[in-house]
Amino acid sequence: MKQDIGIGILGLGTVGTGIARLLTENSDLIAKRLGAALTIRCAADLEIEKDRGVKFADGVLTTDPLEVIADPEVDIVLELIGGKETALDLIHKAIDQGKHVVTANKALLAEKGMELFRKASAANVNIAFEPSVGGCMPIVKTLRESLAGNHIHSICGILNGTCNYILSKITEEGVPFADALAEAQEKGYAEANPGLDVDGIDTTHKAAILSALAYGMELNFGDIYMEGISGITPMDIEFAAQCGYKIKLLAITKYDRDADAAEVRVHPTMIPDTGPLSKVDGTLNAVSIRGDAVGDMMLYGHGAGMMPTASAVLSDIVDIARILLAGGGIHVPLLSYQMNNIRKIPVRPIDEISTHYYFRFSAVDRPGVLSKIAGILGEHGISIKSVHQIERELNGGVPIFMLTHKALEADVKSALSQISALDVIINEPILIRIEESLD
Amino acid sequence: MKQDIGIGILGLGTVGTGIARLLTENSDLIAKRLGAALTIRCAADLEIEKDRGVKFADGVLTTDPLEVIADPEVDIVLELIGGKETALDLIHKAIDQGKHVVTANKALLAEKGMELFRKASAANVNIAFEPSVGGCMPIVKTLRESLAGNHIHSICGILNGTCNYILSKITEEGVPFADALAEAQEKGYAEANPGLDVDGIDTTHKAAILSALAYGMELNFGDIYMEGISGITPMDIEFAAQCGYKIKLLAITKYDRDADAAEVRVHPTMIPDTGPLSKVDGTLNAVSIRGDAVGDMMLYGHGAGMMPTASAVLSDIVDIARILLAGGGIHVPLLSYQMNNIRKIPVRPIDEISTHYYFRFSAVDRPGVLSKIAGILGEHGISIKSVHQIERELNGGVPIFMLTHKALEADVKSALSQISALDVIINEPILIRIEESLD
Repeated sequence: MKQDIGIGILGLGTVGTGIARLLTENSDLIAKRLGAALTIRCAADLEIEKDRGVKFADGVLTTDPLEVIADPEVDIVLELIGGKETALDLIHKAIDQGKHVVTANKALLAEKGMELFRKASAANVNIAFEPSVGGCMPIVKTLRESLAGNHIHSICGILNGTCNYILSKITEEGVPFADALAEAQEKGYAEANPGLDVDGIDTTHKAAILSALAYGMELNFGDIYMEGISGITPMDIEFAAQCGYKIKLLAITKYDRDADAAEVRVHPTMIPDTGPLSKVDGTLNAVSIRGDAVGDMMLYGHGAGMMPTASAVLSDIVDIARILLAGGGIHVPLLSYQMNNIRKIPVRPIDEISTHYYFRFSAVDRPGVLSKIAGILGEHGISIKSVHQIERELNGGVPIFMLTHKALEADVKSALSQISALDVIINEPILIRIEESLD
Repeated sequence: MKQDIGIGILGLGTVGTGIARLLTENSDLIAKRLGAALTIRCAADLEIEKDRGVKFADGVLTTDPLEVIADPEVDIVLELIGGKETALDLIHKAIDQGKHVVTANKALLAEKGMELFRKASAANVNIAFEPSVGGCMPIVKTLRESLAGNHIHSICGILNGTCNYILSKITEEGVPFADALAEAQEKGYAEANPGLDVDGIDTTHKAAILSALAYGMELNFGDIYMEGISGITPMDIEFAAQCGYKIKLLAITKYDRDADAAEVRVHPTMIPDTGPLSKVDGTLNAVSIRGDAVGDMMLYGHGAGMMPTASAVLSDIVDIARILLAGGGIHVPLLSYQMNNIRKIPVRPIDEISTHYYFRFSAVDRPGVLSKIAGILGEHGISIKSVHQIERELNGGVPIFMLTHKALEADVKSALSQISALDVIINEPILIRIEESLD
C-alpha cells in the first residue's frame, strides 16, 4: 500500500503559501488521521527566492509549472494560480498526465468547468474544489455527500466577504458606499480594482457552482442575473432596518421540480432581520440550504483568508489521498450527480421571477404624487404592502418608500419605467428585491 | 461492478420509518447521484403489520432482527432500535457477519463505542454515525473529513433540541422550568420521562463522541461533568439578558495541546448574546468549532426529527455504498484518527477548570451582607466583575447577582460553601458558568 502521497503546487500566493504551511506544520496530525504522509514534491511560482516562512525541501521549488505536472512523484496537483487561460491549460495538462486536481479557481470552474469535469470524468481523475466556494465551510462536501438523499429546493448564500464587510459597515456606521469601500481596501478586504467583488461577479461564479452541485445542472455562469452593491445607500439600509430587514448581497438559487426550471440570481437582497443569515456580518460568509429531508440548515465561517482557504484545500487533498490509498478512481461524482445525469436546466430570465420588492422614489413634494405612483403600480397588478413618506430632502424632492406583495419582475420594471417618466419623479427609482421566506 | 447495495433495517420507529421513506421516495435521485441502487432487503421490527405509509417489497419485513443480519443480500445494517444491550449485541453480530453498520445510537457509542470501533476496525468494516450527533448537520463528516488538517481547539454545541426549546420558552415568556417542560411534552418535543434530555445525559453522550472525533481521544462518557437545566429560573435568564448574555445548555469540549489534557463538560452556560450560537432558538441545534486553520466555523440545523435524522442516515449509507462500489474497506478512519493513534486523553476534573461565573445569592436585607460575601470571595482569590442587588423579594430575602472574572472552580465551590453557611444567606447560592470567548 502506498504510504506517501505526492503533492504538486501551482502558485505560491496567499492560498499556496497557506497550504504549504499547513502541510508542513500539521504533517504529524495529518499522518495520524490519514495513515500516510502528504509530501510536497514540486511547487511552482515565478518568485521562488521570496521568503514565505515555509521551509521547502531542496529541489522542490521551480519557476516552471510544467515541471510540477510532469513530476512522476506528484499524485495531486493544486491549481492555485488563479486567472483563466493559463490555469485552464495547466489543468488540462494535469488531467492528461492522470493527475488529480484541486482548485480554488471559481471563475474558471464557473465559466469553463464543464469541459474540465467531462474530461476528468473520462480520465477517471478527480477535480476537487471545496476552496472555490465559501472558504473553509464544507459546502461542496455537504452538497456532494451529506445531502445526497435530498432534493435541494434552494440555497441562499452570503459568499463574498468584501461585499458583506462593506454592507455591514454602511449598516453600522451609516457611511456611504464609497467610504465603506475605501475602508475595506485599506484593511486589505477589497482589491484596488474591486469590481470582481462589488459588482457581484465573484458571488455569481459561486452561485453557478452551487447550482450545478445542488440540482445536477450544467454550470451556467452566463445565464445568471447579477447585480452588485454599489447602488446601496445608507438611506435604504436605514429604512430596511426600520421595517425589520437587513440588506445582504445574496446568491439565490432555487429549483422548481414541477417546471424543471431553476432560478439563479445574485443581487442585494432585503432579508428579515430575525433569521440567522441576517446576523452574518463583517467578512464572514454563510450558506443556508433547504432540502426536502433536512429542512433548513446553515453553514457559517470564514469565506476567505490564507488559512481557512488552505484548510479547504487540505480537505480535498485528504479526500483524494484516501481514494488513492484505496486504489484510485472517482468515488464521489465530481458535480454531485453521475456525469451522464448532468444536464442543462433552463434558468428563468429575471423578468419571469416573482418576489417581494422595495422601491424608493424621490418625488416632488406636491399633492397627488402618491396617487399617480400607486395608480401605475395598480395597473400593473402590483399590490402595495406599505408606503412610507418621510420628511427629508432627497435630490430636491422627498423620498417615498414602498414595500410590495409578490409581483412579477417584468410588471415591476414596466411600472417603474412609467413612474420614472412622470414629471414629478426626480432620478431613477431604486428597486431592491426582498426574500421573505428565509429563516 | 456492483450495481445494487442491499440495506437492512433494525427498528422501524421514527428514524427507521424516515429512512425507509427516503430510500423509497427519493430512489431515482439517489441512483442518479450514486450510480447504483440502494434497496431495502430486510427490515425488522416487533410490529410489522402497522401502516407506516411506506410500501415495503414482499418478504422484506420480519420480526427477527437476526434475519436482517444474516441476509446475504444485506451489505449495510442500520441499527435504529436504540437502547443498549440488544443494540450492542446486534451490532457485534453484524460486524461478525462482515456487515457495515450505520447507527444513530449516541448512548451506545458514548458508553460502549470503543469496543465496537476496535472490532469494526479489525474486521475492516465501517461503523458510521452521522445521525448520532446533531441530526442533519454534517458534524461527524466535518470533523472526520473537512477538518482533517486542523488541530481542533474547541467545540461548543447546542445539541439537544428539547433543552433548547425549554430554555427559549423560559427566555421568551418568563415561565418557570416546569411549565416550559410541560409545554414541550405537550408538543412532543420532550418525552414523558424527560431526564435523558433535561438532565444533560443526551448532550453528554454527544460531547463524548465529538471529543473523540476532534482530538483522537477514547470515548469518555464517564469522565464528563454533566449538569442539566432544571435549576434554571426565569430570574436568572432575565438577569443574564440584562448583562448581555443568553443561557444555553452547551456541550463544551477543549483540548490543551501543551498540557495534553481535555476539558469536556455539559452544563447551562451564559454566552454573549452577540454571537451566532446565542441566536439558535427553539428546537434547533448548532455546533461551533474552532480549529487552528479554519478559525471559527458553525453548523446549524435540525438536530432531531424523522426526516432530518433520516437524511443523516442516508448520508452515511451513501458514503459506505461508494466505498463498496470502490472495493470495500475503511477509507475514512472511524474516529477521525487511525485506530492505533486513538488514545486516552485525561479529562480535567471540573474542579480544575477556570472560567467566568455568575452567582445569585438570596440574602437577608441587612447592612454588611454584601461585604461578608465579597470578603469570602476575595479570600478565595475570586475577583468580582460586577454586583447587582435589585429590590425584589426572593425566598424572604433579596437577590444579589454577581459576575466574576476568571476563577478556579475549586475556589468557587469552597467560597460558595462558606457563603452558604452564613446566617444571612437563605437557600443555596446559584452558580452558572460563563463562556466569554464564543463569537
